[in-house]
Amino acid sequence: MTDREIGGLGAEPPDRVPGGNAQGKFGGLGAEPPVGVPGGGAPGGEFFTTLGVSEALAGFRPRRRSDTERVPREQALGRVPASAVVSPAPLPGFARSTVDGYAVRASDTYGASDSLPSYLDVLGSVRMGAAADVAVRPGAAVSVPTGAVIPDGADAVVMVEYTQSTLPGVVEVTRPVAPADGIVRADEDVAPGAELAPAGRPLRAQDLGLLAAAGVVDVDVTAKPRVGIISTGDEVVPPDTVRLAAGQVRDATASALAALVTEAGGEPSPRGIVPDDADMLTKTLEQAVSECDMVVVSAGSSVGARDMTVSAVRALGEPGVFCHGLAIKPGKPTLLAECGDVPVIGLPGNPLSALVVFRLVGLPTLRLVGGITYPPPSATTAARLSRSVPSAAGRLDVVQVRLSGEVAPVATPIFGASALLSLLTTADGYVVVDEAATGLDENATVTVTRY
Amino acid sequence: MTDREIGGLGAEPPDRVPGGNAQGKFGGLGAEPPVGVPGGGAPGGEFFTTLGVSEALAGFRPRRRSDTERVPREQALGRVPASAVVSPAPLPGFARSTVDGYAVRASDTYGASDSLPSYLDVLGSVRMGAAADVAVRPGAAVSVPTGAVIPDGADAVVMVEYTQSTLPGVVEVTRPVAPADGIVRADEDVAPGAELAPAGRPLRAQDLGLLAAAGVVDVDVTAKPRVGIISTGDEVVPPDTVRLAAGQVRDATASALAALVTEAGGEPSPRGIVPDDADMLTKTLEQAVSECDMVVVSAGSSVGARDMTVSAVRALGEPGVFCHGLAIKPGKPTLLAECGDVPVIGLPGNPLSALVVFRLVGLPTLRLVGGITYPPPSATTAARLSRSVPSAAGRLDVVQVRLSGEVAPVATPIFGASALLSLLTTADGYVVVDEAATGLDENATVTVTRY
Repeated sequence: MTDREIGGLGAEPPDRVPGGNAQGKFGGLGAEPPVGVPGGGAPGGEFFTTLGVSEALAGFRPRRRSDTERVPREQALGRVPASAVVSPAPLPGFARSTVDGYAVRASDTYGASDSLPSYLDVLGSVRMGAAADVAVRPGAAVSVPTGAVIPDGADAVVMVEYTQSTLPGVVEVTRPVAPADGIVRADEDVAPGAELAPAGRPLRAQDLGLLAAAGVVDVDVTAKPRVGIISTGDEVVPPDTVRLAAGQVRDATASALAALVTEAGGEPSPRGIVPDDADMLTKTLEQAVSECDMVVVSAGSSVGARDMTVSAVRALGEPGVFCHGLAIKPGKPTLLAECGDVPVIGLPGNPLSALVVFRLVGLPTLRLVGGITYPPPSATTAARLSRSVPSAAGRLDVVQVRLSGEVAPVATPIFGASALLSLLTTADGYVVVDEAATGLDENATVTVTRY
Repeated sequence: MTDREIGGLGAEPPDRVPGGNAQGKFGGLGAEPPVGVPGGGAPGGEFFTTLGVSEALAGFRPRRRSDTERVPREQALGRVPASAVVSPAPLPGFARSTVDGYAVRASDTYGASDSLPSYLDVLGSVRMGAAADVAVRPGAAVSVPTGAVIPDGADAVVMVEYTQSTLPGVVEVTRPVAPADGIVRADEDVAPGAELAPAGRPLRAQDLGLLAAAGVVDVDVTAKPRVGIISTGDEVVPPDTVRLAAGQVRDATASALAALVTEAGGEPSPRGIVPDDADMLTKTLEQAVSECDMVVVSAGSSVGARDMTVSAVRALGEPGVFCHGLAIKPGKPTLLAECGDVPVIGLPGNPLSALVVFRLVGLPTLRLVGGITYPPPSATTAARLSRSVPSAAGRLDVVQVRLSGEVAPVATPIFGASALLSLLTTADGYVVVDEAATGLDENATVTVTRY
């Protein structure tokens, strides 16, 4: 990872590139080219055409899918069922009372009122968790607590609030009940064979509750996609480095990417830092592709290093590069590729750009590989924009914002002289300015996706 | 857990309770009492006064806080800093170039244009990750890639796009730069001693990235609050029970609560199933309170079992019961208490009610204990209500809904004859009808909190 793409909203690239520019002379390290520059380009460097983000997401559909594995239910929170989980039996499994009261024949209560109650003989009671050892005959009742088995012969339960007990062994019912009142059928919660949880939706707390109720012990889920994370750059050193030499920076991107992968249900597989060396990158990439379900290379897509990533991807065979440059700011020098069936995403060098674009493009790919067909909803807030935000048409802009105000939230864009990671840590969320827009007006209502 | 509180929107409790009702005669198992019934009550059962949910949340502030522990940064995702994490050093730590270009003295470029460029001698270049071994003197330039050290003597970087190299050893600058252009100061991302992450906000991906950049290896965080989960009920059996006897149900609530606790950053501590026996519950609760930061008892709050939980809470000393009954549906028979400084929450017997009320009342308590002062935003969607929803004034109603339609979402309330757990697994989210409202109209715009 390098800061090759540094230069956020404060450092717009120029509109035109002069003919004889020196692109590529810095050992292949080039600034992010301007928007709309077609393919081809300067000696020693190749410009890329940019693809719209939604086009890219629609078109980039790697074939890789992670394996299926069986996990115990207690460890299945957030895991993704590989196929629908169905109930082996009906739930609750027996007709139950939904109230405290008396199991009766509904016809015995018709016309009952406070002034003219139905008098029923109390034959006994049903204990919680036990079979009913007495049946209800005409003119009689059996007391039942909420959740207890409905005794044979009864077709309704009258709530205790609508009864009085003035004589021993007799209950007075003061309101009529209809058949099925106060009763849950044996299969009313879940019918046998019914779906307890759909395939492709990460299991939630209540899903695990229903699985427990149905006695489901193990669940077949997709394995967590293993995501290889490769950092590149001669200047990048491990984050645990105590003293930095001149010009060195610690690897921030790999840690943050690992966290995003974990949050999204993947398993990060850190592959360390590779210097700016094409052969080493090719070898590292090859091994990662052979061991992972998806690979992310940070800083593999700026002008020079991008050539390295591209040649490494090409060395690994078909189908290769899908797109090379996205119409997004920050994050334009993004590479989407497939080695065999493994998606390879080349991210910009600076951490902010890398994280922004991985969130928007990498996570959907990760979910695809991991079999998530119901993406989890993201937290959003409608807010008023505190100031106008410029944007170039044809480019998707991701603007970091702070939020203030509970009742009438205000989103304040955070700009910096350059793409500093601290912008992302002070932000409460981001606003997307879509391709068609040429900016957002002050006081516009915007949707903030919350971090 | 029992289904003692079963009876959702389809089985409204009556408005009035007849004088001589039989509450309590079923071994202490009573139906949920109607709204607005004051304290005191029938023989064998004690009615509770209900407290509003917002009042309860504002007033119930247990003193317990979980310990502080030190964790490695790589394991700190979602963990809560116990104190602000500050940077030991400035970041990036050295003045860096934000573009590919030439480090220059800005004054040497004043007036430069395409037709009248400034000609500067190129003295050398700076390599990535290395010190600058050459300084910039008047009339000269040093080539720098993005992210490289700014050499001594330079005060700006001119982008390569605004240069031409037609003569060896000379660069033509075609646009002027101002001092500081193209440069990130040594402390521009983070000043020494500046806050990298605030106390009380769970660490996000970008926070971990910034911590990595600053070389922070370990983080002092609050320990995950240990939450004891006790299930009660003679009819409740472990979820792995293969064959149920008549009247038995598997424990669904404990699994779902454990998942909610995990999601919210706590550590579930399952305490098994206790039969409806006051002494056993007291012993189990006592041990849980001594070993946990918070205890949840499911089905400890229906009329009879509630008495058990209350007496168990009282046996464990001050300050005891905070509130006994919440103005919420479902979930009214909820108990909030404190044993020593440990919060104890008694939840209704049926899984749906237990999960609804734990989400609304239990999770804020869990966050309080765990030191989370920035609660994570929840995902919400504005939607049009497909039909009217009745509600009693003075009571908060939580209505489960399905969502359909991407562009103009419609929320369809899911009602059942009773509070079945499957309602919660088919729901996409819920709508809260607040205390003041007497229902929601068809076509009203509502805020759906997504699962």
